[in-house]
Amino acid sequence: MTPEEFRQAGHELIDWIADYRSNLEQRPVRAQVAPAQIKNSLPSEAPTSPRSAQQMLYDLEDKIVPGITQVQHPMHFGWFPSNASLASTLGDIASSGLGTLGISWESCPALTEVEEVVCDWLRQLTGLSENWEGCIQDTASTSCLTALLLARERASEFSQNKGGLQSHPHAMVIYTTAEAHSSVIKSALLAGFGKDNLRLIEMDPLSRAMRAQNLKEQVANDIRAGLKPAAVVASVGSTGVTAFDPVAEIAEIATRHGIWLHVDAAMAGSAMLLPECRHLWEGVEAADSISWNPHKWMGTILDCSLFYVRDVQHLVRVMSTNPSYLRSTVDAEVRQYRDWGIPLGRRFRALKLWYHLGIDGIDSIRERLRRDLDNSRWFAQQVEAAKDWRVLAPVDLQTVCIRHEPPGVTGEALDQHTLAWVNAINQSGEAFMSPSILDGRWMLRVSIGVEATTRAHIERLWQLIRQRAQGPIS
Amino acid sequence: MTPEEFRQAGHELIDWIADYRSNLEQRPVRAQVAPAQIKNSLPSEAPTSPRSAQQMLYDLEDKIVPGITQVQHPMHFGWFPSNASLASTLGDIASSGLGTLGISWESCPALTEVEEVVCDWLRQLTGLSENWEGCIQDTASTSCLTALLLARERASEFSQNKGGLQSHPHAMVIYTTAEAHSSVIKSALLAGFGKDNLRLIEMDPLSRAMRAQNLKEQVANDIRAGLKPAAVVASVGSTGVTAFDPVAEIAEIATRHGIWLHVDAAMAGSAMLLPECRHLWEGVEAADSISWNPHKWMGTILDCSLFYVRDVQHLVRVMSTNPSYLRSTVDAEVRQYRDWGIPLGRRFRALKLWYHLGIDGIDSIRERLRRDLDNSRWFAQQVEAAKDWRVLAPVDLQTVCIRHEPPGVTGEALDQHTLAWVNAINQSGEAFMSPSILDGRWMLRVSIGVEATTRAHIERLWQLIRQRAQGPIS
Repeated sequence: MTPEEFRQAGHELIDWIADYRSNLEQRPVRAQVAPAQIKNSLPSEAPTSPRSAQQMLYDLEDKIVPGITQVQHPMHFGWFPSNASLASTLGDIASSGLGTLGISWESCPALTEVEEVVCDWLRQLTGLSENWEGCIQDTASTSCLTALLLARERASEFSQNKGGLQSHPHAMVIYTTAEAHSSVIKSALLAGFGKDNLRLIEMDPLSRAMRAQNLKEQVANDIRAGLKPAAVVASVGSTGVTAFDPVAEIAEIATRHGIWLHVDAAMAGSAMLLPECRHLWEGVEAADSISWNPHKWMGTILDCSLFYVRDVQHLVRVMSTNPSYLRSTVDAEVRQYRDWGIPLGRRFRALKLWYHLGIDGIDSIRERLRRDLDNSRWFAQQVEAAKDWRVLAPVDLQTVCIRHEPPGVTGEALDQHTLAWVNAINQSGEAFMSPSILDGRWMLRVSIGVEATTRAHIERLWQLIRQRAQGPIS
Repeated sequence: MTPEEFRQAGHELIDWIADYRSNLEQRPVRAQVAPAQIKNSLPSEAPTSPRSAQQMLYDLEDKIVPGITQVQHPMHFGWFPSNASLASTLGDIASSGLGTLGISWESCPALTEVEEVVCDWLRQLTGLSENWEGCIQDTASTSCLTALLLARERASEFSQNKGGLQSHPHAMVIYTTAEAHSSVIKSALLAGFGKDNLRLIEMDPLSRAMRAQNLKEQVANDIRAGLKPAAVVASVGSTGVTAFDPVAEIAEIATRHGIWLHVDAAMAGSAMLLPECRHLWEGVEAADSISWNPHKWMGTILDCSLFYVRDVQHLVRVMSTNPSYLRSTVDAEVRQYRDWGIPLGRRFRALKLWYHLGIDGIDSIRERLRRDLDNSRWFAQQVEAAKDWRVLAPVDLQTVCIRHEPPGVTGEALDQHTLAWVNAINQSGEAFMSPSILDGRWMLRVSIGVEATTRAHIERLWQLIRQRAQGPIS
């Protein structure tokens, strides 16, 4: 494809994208396809003769789009918001257009230095001190794995440079709660700690926040048993019920015992752009690492997860590689982001943050976040005020956990009722929410915060929910 | 930013990209900036008032582009080719435009199923049997780490579900060579095996291929010593000198002892699109995992690394997570790519492969690869025929390792001479090559295969090299 062919096809694609994003609301929220339907609509072998960009665009429309669950749709309330603001999308397109390669500072100085700059902008905007330095990872899962590797090497006095984890004399232990994101357990297992050395600390039954007192006791027990507490992962806005672990109290225990504290604020990090929300991670300055995802609520297109550490030297010591073919004469003066994570090659992801903050501006982003907080409170109030409806967890942020509990319907029957009405809504394509299990029973997570979602959409959702759960409202 | 604003800004950006890609050859190959120059040209705080897309475009041109080393430039011969074909760039733009979220099949069925389809197309196009199933990872580094985690859990009988690696009674051992990519050692250390349990097997002094006989002996020694051989990583086209480990012989040893065999064909995988090159990884069918990067020579824009395994059940068992909020009614019938790697959230990367193969077509890709092989042979012949010049390693693929060795110049002086002339070329911006160390001495890797590089550019390079190394040619 020549640049001129690209120019023409690019213009057509941009028009198609602009139309697509304008008309999202007319599409069903959840993809209405059966398993294998998309796969079976595509040829089982690669095309043997070239196809035109126009043909690709037809296929995109006819074959791909029906298989997309519309997370940008204003009636999407599933999982967490995964906003792909158009300003950040433009930055992502610029990144693709440039076709850069990030494997060292030398391979693209701008890629490294713009990343340094925007990570520092976000540090300031979330109220973190100058003690933190950051980079962009793909996801909070990868950030969490990286954090636990850093913890492992600190606790084992760099076992990687000797016999590895397998030679370590005292089993190292990881602490978190059952509310922690699935990637915390996955990371602990991948880092080699083993399930036996993972402690799920007791939580407050209502808020689902870790009980610091229980952490303290468990750590003491483990030390007495000859084990080595290595890391605690605190959730700041958990996935299930948006629980907030008490970071300050946890940090005090961690600091006392030299335990690595990783703060997983994947979702709630966006809220820290608002000064009035920062009490939710009070104590964070004493942590060792933090991650949060602008690609969620803030709206910088996926993939864009920020990872901050205080001890950069330790990070680089654990993650570094320095083969001769990557060395250059300026290595001592520059940052090598390959030594900040797992992959060597990196895309120019900083551009999407740069564009997002540049074009939308932080004020409009903050205004939108506050709108969503208001909408969530309003929605929770409606649910609380309605007969037979319950809000099941504190609404500290933008996710509201609810259940319809008709009189006399309990246990398995209640689960059936819950799944029946939510699946009816999800299947209809009118709105989408994530059912989730809380204390062994299904409930509904209504996660508010899609860029396009206004109060009118929340009103419509509440009407829809009551209709489906209660039957027609007179 | 509204869709209409995006439409206008998008058209301007597409025009800018088309111009940029057309005029690449007029820019210096290596970025001509000093450390911190880009950083210091950007504001140290996020902009407080929104800026126009036009202003962003000016900044892109004025502030970002000077900091880009032009890996798409026809005179770029550094590292490995990192082609970003415009067809695949268009697919990447489509992916950004769609703003999808890949965390489960349900969150975007098309993202999952197109990935299944294109991974299978590439499986067929590289001559692999139906025993392999694949996915897209960001880089070969991540694929290698994943492979070693799979090896670790197989060799330790799922220690992750018990006491972890730290409780494993017999130290597990990893085998590779000093020619292996830096990510192999990094992966072994991150997976927790420890440096003491990493064996760098002796290589053939000329080809730098692993000596299978030495592997066999080392494995036997380790077993006698009570250790557990866990994995061997074979390089198919190493980064230093494009060495090819003898996969068939290694596979035989690995199979006999139940050792996981990972084939790292990050660069040379592209060559397997050509039937005449497949002898270079003969025996690959007996491996346990393979990775290779379409984002290198083949030219699908970064990031796009393919990872294939034979035992999908084992992969999923090691990497899976299944929290309630990600479950859906069709889980039993669909693939969940979150269980194939580290990150939970994934971009719609399959679109760039789909566009690349669709618009450029496999025939034109193959033609270009063959052109590059021809050019590499031609270049190697020129070097070999020239006085005081040496080709230092077999040219099985497209990277030519060379050195100018004037009479009487040896040792440190030779290093100084080599680095002087290559740095002069690199600094001039006329061409770019990667100096690298071979047997303790600096040499030049001339890696041929940028999409825009024709025979005329290679002729120009050869002239330039001789001028800079030998002085003016009469």
